[in-house]
Amino acid sequence: MTRLIALLTDFGLRDPYAGIMKGVILGINPKAEIVDLCHDLAPQDRRGAAFALRSAAPFFPAGALFVAVVDPGVGGTRRILWGRTEKAQFLFPDNGLIGWLHAGFPLKEVREVSNRKLFLPDVGATFHGRDIFAPVAARLSLGLPPSSLGPRAPHWERLPFPGLRRVGARARGEILVVDRFGNAVTNLSPADAEGRTLRFAGRSLGPLRRCYGDVVAGRPLALVGSAGLVELSVNGASFAARFRARAGDAVEAA
Amino acid sequence: MTRLIALLTDFGLRDPYAGIMKGVILGINPKAEIVDLCHDLAPQDRRGAAFALRSAAPFFPAGALFVAVVDPGVGGTRRILWGRTEKAQFLFPDNGLIGWLHAGFPLKEVREVSNRKLFLPDVGATFHGRDIFAPVAARLSLGLPPSSLGPRAPHWERLPFPGLRRVGARARGEILVVDRFGNAVTNLSPADAEGRTLRFAGRSLGPLRRCYGDVVAGRPLALVGSAGLVELSVNGASFAARFRARAGDAVEAA
Amino acid sequence: MTRLIALLTDFGLRDPYAGIMKGVILGINPKAEIVDLCHDLAPQDRRGAAFALRSAAPFFPAGALFVAVVDPGVGGTRRILWGRTEKAQFLFPDNGLIGWLHAGFPLKEVREVSNRKLFLPDVGATFHGRDIFAPVAARLSLGLPPSSLGPRAPHWERLPFPGLRRVGARARGEILVVDRFGNAVTNLSPADAEGRTLRFAGRSLGPLRRCYGDVVAGRPLALVGSAGLVELSVNGASFAARFRARAGDAVEAA
Repeated sequence: MTRLIALLTDFGLRDPYAGIMKGVILGINPKAEIVDLCHDLAPQDRRGAAFALRSAAPFFPAGALFVAVVDPGVGGTRRILWGRTEKAQFLFPDNGLIGWLHAGFPLKEVREVSNRKLFLPDVGATFHGRDIFAPVAARLSLGLPPSSLGPRAPHWERLPFPGLRRVGARARGEILVVDRFGNAVTNLSPADAEGRTLRFAGRSLGPLRRCYGDVVAGRPLALVGSAGLVELSVNGASFAARFRARAGDAVEAA
Repeated sequence: MTRLIALLTDFGLRDPYAGIMKGVILGINPKAEIVDLCHDLAPQDRRGAAFALRSAAPFFPAGALFVAVVDPGVGGTRRILWGRTEKAQFLFPDNGLIGWLHAGFPLKEVREVSNRKLFLPDVGATFHGRDIFAPVAARLSLGLPPSSLGPRAPHWERLPFPGLRRVGARARGEILVVDRFGNAVTNLSPADAEGRTLRFAGRSLGPLRRCYGDVVAGRPLALVGSAGLVELSVNGASFAARFRARAGDAVEAA
Repeated sequence: MTRLIALLTDFGLRDPYAGIMKGVILGINPKAEIVDLCHDLAPQDRRGAAFALRSAAPFFPAGALFVAVVDPGVGGTRRILWGRTEKAQFLFPDNGLIGWLHAGFPLKEVREVSNRKLFLPDVGATFHGRDIFAPVAARLSLGLPPSSLGPRAPHWERLPFPGLRRVGARARGEILVVDRFGNAVTNLSPADAEGRTLRFAGRSLGPLRRCYGDVVAGRPLALVGSAGLVELSVNGASFAARFRARAGDAVEAA
């Protein structure tokens, strides 16, 4: 059982949607501890959500429940799932969001959330964050046994974590996400880049550096970012803006 | 008495204004439970605020206090009011924000907030969120009887909820607000649209659908949104961006 | 000892960084009370951070711990410091953020945060908010004596608070920051402006007014803002957008 519910949505703070989820949760469990993980994901940005879950899960207290509502298929046939790893729990639409969790944190149990008694009485077709995710999260935080949620789900969708192409000593990867600062997080591990030169769009970024200040202000660099992956940055500015870099673009270590 | 204070402002999270309100509240009632309802309303967007209050109030625990600070008249002659419905309480500037509450949730008691002993010692002319709303909210959350706030207010401003024009079987309404996803929430009820074709700017959106996925990705549609009103959307994209739709624009069911 | 931790970052809510800090804090002190002061500061906006700390500190409960992570030098040689005034505590990178605190609130004790036992086990070079600030803040909120943090720091960087140039009865100052509404906060005190005419970019803004409504909608004005400093505004619109005003621009009272 956990009191801690971490919310990850693409609802923003311009509309009351994230706040309404909190109202529903606190109406059911006034002692729930709600943490905003992020709300300003681009609408329907499944990569951003998957990356946020991957980045955050290892740093939350054991048992924390992550509620991820980036849900373009709301109201349709997509299922809502609950799953747990050794350390964390997740409520999420079955659209792949959960696919980028660290390999060391496999989902040990996944269930379909189908018990309508746990939902709000009137479930609409556009805001399951309010009608299903919030009340189910609140009840889990009160100690509801997961077996009450619904049957085990043997299969679920996973956003594929992009693989590398290796040719000899070269490793060709891609940008996973771009963050607010314009840092481009790639799928290259430190080992893939160690001792090599990073290249983006035909341009050399030099070898792996340790911190932003290892190059003068305004210069690009590659370093190991907070997710443990190679990031492309500019010291004091935005790599993405300078080099028009976007999620999915190729990056190379050679 | 309630511990729950929901904040709705146009302060954003770029400036410390919303955070300062929380500091003041917690200085007076360290046990207050503060919930961010929304802070990124467009500056002075009274429609957005009115819609957020309407949407959120039914989903919060009984007794929750909504503090709404969208207040272009701050420092002038506009009053600050407190009001309660059967289920919720509100602190708000007397500029109409409260006008769109559901017809089923009438204000049962409204008072002018005029007792200066409840305010911060120095009240400025630009940030009553800090100097008046926050300390008064905190004291209410500690059990202050509303009669201490000031005298009953027999009248208050209400943003008019736009009416429909009906000609035979046609109902002509308008867009109330546009949300972050570009969904356009209208003042048409499901009954107004049932069995009819929705039209916007001369273009047919077809009949009322049940969920976004009822049309293929990229196609427009109309459906009943989470506020119980007809919304105009595009599956997987922004209706407002695609059709340059804005609050106040006409929409028709015919 | 305090339970209250106020977070000020330039992390935004698009990425999970601010949320991850909360996860780390709550993992160490589940009873910490975390308040978002602001997260949408422009990347690396030291002026905005300094102004937010100045504005917020007087309004928080005694003992509150402000954690300020606007930290372009992360991973390099800049130190992390802890300091306290009579009423508040601060964790901050030694890059000047703390420089604009009110003259009446001097830092009484400043220490270098160098005791690695208080950090997360693996400290990277890009996200000390997670690896150092969050765990140290959590331990302070549990009662850790500041002497455990590290040695006293006799010197630290302060962003200089811009001075005025006075020529006879004229005072020439500058815009410190522009807020979300487009209000331009200046370094002129009310006494500097009293009885004088405010001028920006060759244009008269008239004398100091009391509130926005003292001029008709759409007209510019100067008034004393919530920070106790002269602000330049437009009633119902953005001064910064209308007059292309930016931090650092000159303003005059004559």
